[in-house]
Amino acid sequence: FNSTSSRSCSSSSSSNYDSTKFLDIFDTNMMHRADESNRRLHHTTLFNLDSLIVRRGQEFQVKITFNRPYKPAEDKFALEFVIGSSPQYSKGTYIPVFPTPDRQTSWAGRVLETSNNVVTMGITPAANCIVGKYHMYVAIVTPYGIRRTRRDDSRDLYILFNPWAADDEVFLDDETEREECVMTELGIIYHGSYDDIAERTWNYGQFNHGMLDACLYILDRCQMPITNRGDPVKVTRQASAMLNSRDDEGVLVGNWSGNYVDGVAPTSWTGSTDILLSYYRSRQPVAYAQCWVYAAVFNTFLRCLGIPSRVVTNFFSAHDNDGNLKTDIILDENGRIDRSRTRDSIWNYHCWNECYMARQDLPPGFGGWQVVDATPQETSDGLYRCGPASVQAIKHGQTCYPYDAPFVFAEVNSDVVFNVRSKDGTLEPVKVNRTHVGRVVLTKNPGDLTRRDITDQYKFPEGSPEERTVLEKAVKYGCKREQSNPSPADVELNMPTLEVTMGEDFELTLEFVNHSGETRTVDAYISGSVVYYTGVTSSEFLFRTPTVTVGPHKCKDWSLQSVKELLDIEARTYMRHLVEQSNLNFIVTGKVEETEQIVSAMKVVTLRNPRLIIEVSENGRVNEEMIASVRFTNPFSFNLEGVYVRMEGPGLMTAATKYYR
Amino acid sequence: FNSTSSRSCSSSSSSNYDSTKFLDIFDTNMMHRADESNRRLHHTTLFNLDSLIVRRGQEFQVKITFNRPYKPAEDKFALEFVIGSSPQYSKGTYIPVFPTPDRQTSWAGRVLETSNNVVTMGITPAANCIVGKYHMYVAIVTPYGIRRTRRDDSRDLYILFNPWAADDEVFLDDETEREECVMTELGIIYHGSYDDIAERTWNYGQFNHGMLDACLYILDRCQMPITNRGDPVKVTRQASAMLNSRDDEGVLVGNWSGNYVDGVAPTSWTGSTDILLSYYRSRQPVAYAQCWVYAAVFNTFLRCLGIPSRVVTNFFSAHDNDGNLKTDIILDENGRIDRSRTRDSIWNYHCWNECYMARQDLPPGFGGWQVVDATPQETSDGLYRCGPASVQAIKHGQTCYPYDAPFVFAEVNSDVVFNVRSKDGTLEPVKVNRTHVGRVVLTKNPGDLTRRDITDQYKFPEGSPEERTVLEKAVKYGCKREQSNPSPADVELNMPTLEVTMGEDFELTLEFVNHSGETRTVDAYISGSVVYYTGVTSSEFLFRTPTVTVGPHKCKDWSLQSVKELLDIEARTYMRHLVEQSNLNFIVTGKVEETEQIVSAMKVVTLRNPRLIIEVSENGRVNEEMIASVRFTNPFSFNLEGVYVRMEGPGLMTAATKYYR
Repeated sequence: FNSTSSRSCSSSSSSNYDSTKFLDIFDTNMMHRADESNRRLHHTTLFNLDSLIVRRGQEFQVKITFNRPYKPAEDKFALEFVIGSSPQYSKGTYIPVFPTPDRQTSWAGRVLETSNNVVTMGITPAANCIVGKYHMYVAIVTPYGIRRTRRDDSRDLYILFNPWAADDEVFLDDETEREECVMTELGIIYHGSYDDIAERTWNYGQFNHGMLDACLYILDRCQMPITNRGDPVKVTRQASAMLNSRDDEGVLVGNWSGNYVDGVAPTSWTGSTDILLSYYRSRQPVAYAQCWVYAAVFNTFLRCLGIPSRVVTNFFSAHDNDGNLKTDIILDENGRIDRSRTRDSIWNYHCWNECYMARQDLPPGFGGWQVVDATPQETSDGLYRCGPASVQAIKHGQTCYPYDAPFVFAEVNSDVVFNVRSKDGTLEPVKVNRTHVGRVVLTKNPGDLTRRDITDQYKFPEGSPEERTVLEKAVKYGCKREQSNPSPADVELNMPTLEVTMGEDFELTLEFVNHSGETRTVDAYISGSVVYYTGVTSSEFLFRTPTVTVGPHKCKDWSLQSVKELLDIEARTYMRHLVEQSNLNFIVTGKVEETEQIVSAMKVVTLRNPRLIIEVSENGRVNEEMIASVRFTNPFSFNLEGVYVRMEGPGLMTAATKYYR
Repeated sequence: FNSTSSRSCSSSSSSNYDSTKFLDIFDTNMMHRADESNRRLHHTTLFNLDSLIVRRGQEFQVKITFNRPYKPAEDKFALEFVIGSSPQYSKGTYIPVFPTPDRQTSWAGRVLETSNNVVTMGITPAANCIVGKYHMYVAIVTPYGIRRTRRDDSRDLYILFNPWAADDEVFLDDETEREECVMTELGIIYHGSYDDIAERTWNYGQFNHGMLDACLYILDRCQMPITNRGDPVKVTRQASAMLNSRDDEGVLVGNWSGNYVDGVAPTSWTGSTDILLSYYRSRQPVAYAQCWVYAAVFNTFLRCLGIPSRVVTNFFSAHDNDGNLKTDIILDENGRIDRSRTRDSIWNYHCWNECYMARQDLPPGFGGWQVVDATPQETSDGLYRCGPASVQAIKHGQTCYPYDAPFVFAEVNSDVVFNVRSKDGTLEPVKVNRTHVGRVVLTKNPGDLTRRDITDQYKFPEGSPEERTVLEKAVKYGCKREQSNPSPADVELNMPTLEVTMGEDFELTLEFVNHSGETRTVDAYISGSVVYYTGVTSSEFLFRTPTVTVGPHKCKDWSLQSVKELLDIEARTYMRHLVEQSNLNFIVTGKVEETEQIVSAMKVVTLRNPRLIIEVSENGRVNEEMIASVRFTNPFSFNLEGVYVRMEGPGLMTAATKYYR
């Protein structure tokens, strides 16, 4: 049974011994077809691949046809499973499976049925075995040595992670969740702004033709040691590095520049299949991605290998670039924002993945959902990757546990600190907003198309005693927080939420509310910019500096005095500056003349794209063509030129692009 | 005080306002000379560098000469410290220091003395500030704007870690330890075998000319973010990756091949200075290193920057290559070792570093000594590096805390498992040695030249209840251990320790002891090999297969019967196979005919090199030459040719090499 031996022989070779006496192999049947019980019971029927695909920790069957009936008492045979280039028993890359109870290895084997010359064997791969593509040999002990089947693609098989097996580290004891996070190929990714959420449909397509080989290729490409490929912590960490092209020629090239002429614009993709197939075939990174593309393709990878996963969106995601729990906004002495010195950024939203697993490397209590993130934001320990970080550890401020928990903690918990910069370069914090960042964390609800708010899995409620304890704990583990607590100004500044369709004129309302008993005069700076979703300003299209006077509240009924400042925003002022994803960001800062206090407000307005309306000709019939029409209304006063329409129909049609000059 | 501003002006420029009225800067004095109080109080007098070198968290002084006496009530000035290419207050890379109590930043400032026009300022850098090379500006507020000194090398200064400051994370509250682990330039590195320890003297030379710039260059070379350079965890982890050339063009190229013609043989180095200067000047990795060279140069780096550190040697260090807590030795069915299948290795010894620091990123109790290792053994999270791993965490099996604790845990705790490999490829463990690996951990005793056994800092005593608990905990965190506990054979096999000088014939004794009441017959395989210190076999020079019969113990006094098998080893058999470091490894395995039990024994014999005898001519006198003579006895029967003698004298002479044809 020595797999590296040269003594292998073929089942079809003419034997020079009495074949009625010694057992010989006539045929093997992997029972690999999608409609057979193996794939049905292992939840792998959806894979568009004509191979045996099973999950670890669960029995599957193969049939072996011998030259004569198998006699358990005297015949000795084994099924040998090998993976990788140098199979070795002690490394778990060579596993013999025996039919008799007296001789068992980490993979259980038993004879399920004997019928004439055919033996049906049941094989249960260890629940922590290596995941990937194996080959099966059948070997028989004869007096002339060991006879073994020749290597032949028909005996290749794939073994995947198994969320249905209680002993697997990725066991997820909830059928609705498993259906969603392993089996579902279509998803929704949220974006926009927390008070005006937009949706993007994505075709993960993890079961499409070629996907499984493409996903395994990613691990081969980075030469991940075979022996580590049974450990979901290591697999997901490695993949988070490999999904982006930084450092390691991984799958996706990031581009936030607005110029995508050498590739596909991040907003143009509608699914993962094209991307993964292109990477697999060309062996070259694919251009271009932004956060949701990374998260979506990562999701495909994880679901394909059987690790439960989902895409989540964090609204107002802090991008901490120095390990601090604060994002500094720097104002000059008049209260006007100093853009050249305001370097930390807050992304309007950021997408990452959660994957589900026990964390045997950590103390109890930190298993479950784990954050992994393939978007190259900051290097983690020298490479662009992030996680897995336990969501429970983040909620409880236990940022001492690997991997990258402090970074994820900052993404949802940073404070926004408004600092006034004096002439000598020192900063004085004048306002601390502790609720802006990590405003809402969303994911798709399993089983339907609604959204699910999972903010409470990352944070205790604002103002709760637990929240304070958690922040104190994180500070103890080295997170630096703003300690000062400047008293709030007695003038409040509000901007209501707006829903604006691209191309519309609209009116922006600023409300100044006076909480004091005296008149207040505010010298305000109103800045309107077109921003990328990363919060980076593309260009400023509006700048006003009104002075607003608000009377004192009335003594009688204590009703507050407020003044509304209305700004008419004409479409033509912002349209020519638009970049993709079309966010307008209004920042208002100002100084109260009487008290020198600073007031501020920020509002992201997501411009809605024209709605696409899809109509299908009539009820479809088998083998008959259907016609789908797509229409939309041009919101602009000019003709559109050079329009690409990209379509795909999961299970119906592969991705196609149509170009209209 | 805007350091990026162009409004800087020179103190020597002719001023066009009334200089009697406004404060102007005439001169600055950094008080940087080695004999001045700054460097004496900051323990930096030994640095051979004519700059101000101070440690953080402790006050130092500079003198500023103005055009007239300083008037605290009306004059406004600041000292500005900047580091890196884009100094910024919020990042800690631009720090203004003010003389008055009402205006203080994270670096305290005060006027210590005013004498005529000269002000002596005391500056206390924050105890967690960035470590590296700063520049100091002096800036004065005048009615005409801010006047600032021009950039000038004379106002450069170095700020280092401070083991003497209670607020510094590297605080080490023991003067003897600090003297040794920060200030001492000469050290001893242990090697050989645990029962025959050899010593290597090393000149760390951390205060030599050029060392400080060379060490800081290492951090620049890998573009370590400036903002992380105050954190000893991040600095030591980054350096463990950069000290080897793998991945990142770091300092030292490893070579265990025996062929060093393109560089310097690892055994030839006697100190770190040449290596670090060569890297700094050529910007190229230096050839060649093995573990003690990595550890020694890393030690220089750490002591130079002020992080307390020492080199430790672990005897019988397991090199775990798959995250298991076992090293498999594979025997064939006759009990003979199968070298082609025995892939895990045990190094005769392995050197790494310990550095001392609080671990604010971990829960309390895991500060103190931390293992860091620059030898490229296995990639840690994608790069060749290791640590810092808390020694306390390793002792207590808390391998869940970063970084690389499971790897270090295995180095000192692996079991050696002897497996018999059956024909079908499965392995049966027949003997488990739980005490071989991590036999002794040694370091130099602070303050003298003796050795200190620190094994108890890594492990609880063999057989103690704590030892069992710790191993169980490590297994819970995913370390895989051999679970089986095969009963020991009733024949014991012993090999006494031997001290052999290179070139000597010697006698090897094998003792077979029979613990049973019956006669035992052992078919033994005795293999003698020349091995590298990594345990890798270079060549086998001896192979014998005696059959040894041992009688039963006598019933009367239960005295055990034993048989001694003597083997004469002639020098000529091993001399021609020798590689550097000259270890002979004897492995004896065998099978007891009567019981089929396996017996085994291993012994590493370190061949002693001829002793070098150094004699100095007479008592040295200042400014007079001294003569040192070096002699040794050639142990061989032939003439030596092509001999290099490498010498250095710390503080006396730089490294010199002499070649004798």
